[in-house]
Amino acid sequence: MTVGFVSLVGAGPGDPELLTMRAVARLRAADIVLYDALVDRAALRFAPHARWAYVGKRAGRHSISQRTIESLMIRHARSGERVVRLKSGDPFVFGRGGEEALALAAAGIPCEVVPGVSSAVAGPALQGIPVTHRGLASAFLVLSGHAESETLRSLTPGAATVVVLMGLSTREQIAALLLARGWDPRTPSAVLLSASSADAQSWRGPLAELGACDLPERYPDLPGLLVIGATVAIADQLDSANIASGANPDQLQNRFLLGSRHTPVDDAIEHPLLG
Amino acid sequence: MTVGFVSLVGAGPGDPELLTMRAVARLRAADIVLYDALVDRAALRFAPHARWAYVGKRAGRHSISQRTIESLMIRHARSGERVVRLKSGDPFVFGRGGEEALALAAAGIPCEVVPGVSSAVAGPALQGIPVTHRGLASAFLVLSGHAESETLRSLTPGAATVVVLMGLSTREQIAALLLARGWDPRTPSAVLLSASSADAQSWRGPLAELGACDLPERYPDLPGLLVIGATVAIADQLDSANIASGANPDQLQNRFLLGSRHTPVDDAIEHPLLG
Repeated sequence: MTVGFVSLVGAGPGDPELLTMRAVARLRAADIVLYDALVDRAALRFAPHARWAYVGKRAGRHSISQRTIESLMIRHARSGERVVRLKSGDPFVFGRGGEEALALAAAGIPCEVVPGVSSAVAGPALQGIPVTHRGLASAFLVLSGHAESETLRSLTPGAATVVVLMGLSTREQIAALLLARGWDPRTPSAVLLSASSADAQSWRGPLAELGACDLPERYPDLPGLLVIGATVAIADQLDSANIASGANPDQLQNRFLLGSRHTPVDDAIEHPLLG
Repeated sequence: MTVGFVSLVGAGPGDPELLTMRAVARLRAADIVLYDALVDRAALRFAPHARWAYVGKRAGRHSISQRTIESLMIRHARSGERVVRLKSGDPFVFGRGGEEALALAAAGIPCEVVPGVSSAVAGPALQGIPVTHRGLASAFLVLSGHAESETLRSLTPGAATVVVLMGLSTREQIAALLLARGWDPRTPSAVLLSASSADAQSWRGPLAELGACDLPERYPDLPGLLVIGATVAIADQLDSANIASGANPDQLQNRFLLGSRHTPVDDAIEHPLLG
């Protein structure tokens, strides 16, 4: 009997150019791709011969259960197929990739993880915010806004850059908790929506105003994250050095290019690593 | 006057297959590549026409200064060249990418950041350790082993998965600090060396034994990281489900494939996104 194979693949923060070479190779070879809500459908073009199955979950909507997703992977692998489980960002950063790896191992299905570019780091980076910066932050904490806030509560004020995924709807409570814990109300903060895409929207301001920021309500369909910490001010410094985005590089001077709006290189990749 | 362009590019954790599509495109178009110590030289093959300049720093050895690196980037960009600054992992995770972006902005040089797969997440993942896992960890903290330990000291014991980069030489102090802070001595811990390469070496054991682990001394040339937290035990569970690595997928049953030792797909990428 031929047994198939499951690749738990990170799709990165949205922009298909941030897929890894290995992710693209797995998509090309896939028989079936099970993909999540936040995966950019432009990634589909790399798997033109595969069947695509949307198995995403979105807050407040009816969705397929985790158990069903695992059963689907197992069933297709058992029939000899190459299964790609495509997840937004990295499969092991709030992606339930660990649960799926355990389910596959228990079922006797060979699998692998293909790490992806995590939105937690790339989202801020693409908006000019480094999660670490000499003299400003030598640590960063990534957490889910759904989680109980024990971790956040324990952190010494200002001791690390805080990145909150799935925290748009709890930003007011998160800001209030940090302020109550003694964080400086002037701590630079950001709300970043679709940070790696051309639709990117961002707000920056002091922690004291984070709770009142209404950007998520104005763009209710965009996913996003929060960043809190001194390194957010780097984006202001880059701004003040005359930043713009979306322009042709030959017309640019003095600019930090945001997001993926701009591609200075359009050469074809003809001889890839895997060729 | 033609002005060049600088791309601050993340090379990922080492394995060239974990380069992003955009990183490869920037390498192909580069006139000069300034690369760091931990960058896998296999990435060079993507920039056959560029000049390569090693500007890496290694602990305890004479090395080029940060200021000199920034001057090099500026000088080459001013002469109209496309400069790739290639950094291990992600350029904004302990990569001084923020400093370089500011220096370039101040000099009027257009630049961009190309996020990479961070070793902080991918290293553990490739060894079967998710940094988050439902019921075990809803947050993770990434810090430098060089840093003062205020952040680590403040964290509630067990509240987050802790990933320490550049912490091999300080692992004894880090373990002692956590134990003194009340972390359970049985907390699963790991030392991972070259986690994304075929040379990968790993140790797993309780936090109480982390300080005495001698793996880094046995492989003094391999870079590595520490992981401390309940999710490290996922790797044990995957192990106990009969794990192996390095085999052909058609001979595999019941296996979680570690690192990059195994490539089940060898198709060429002929029609890339950027083509």
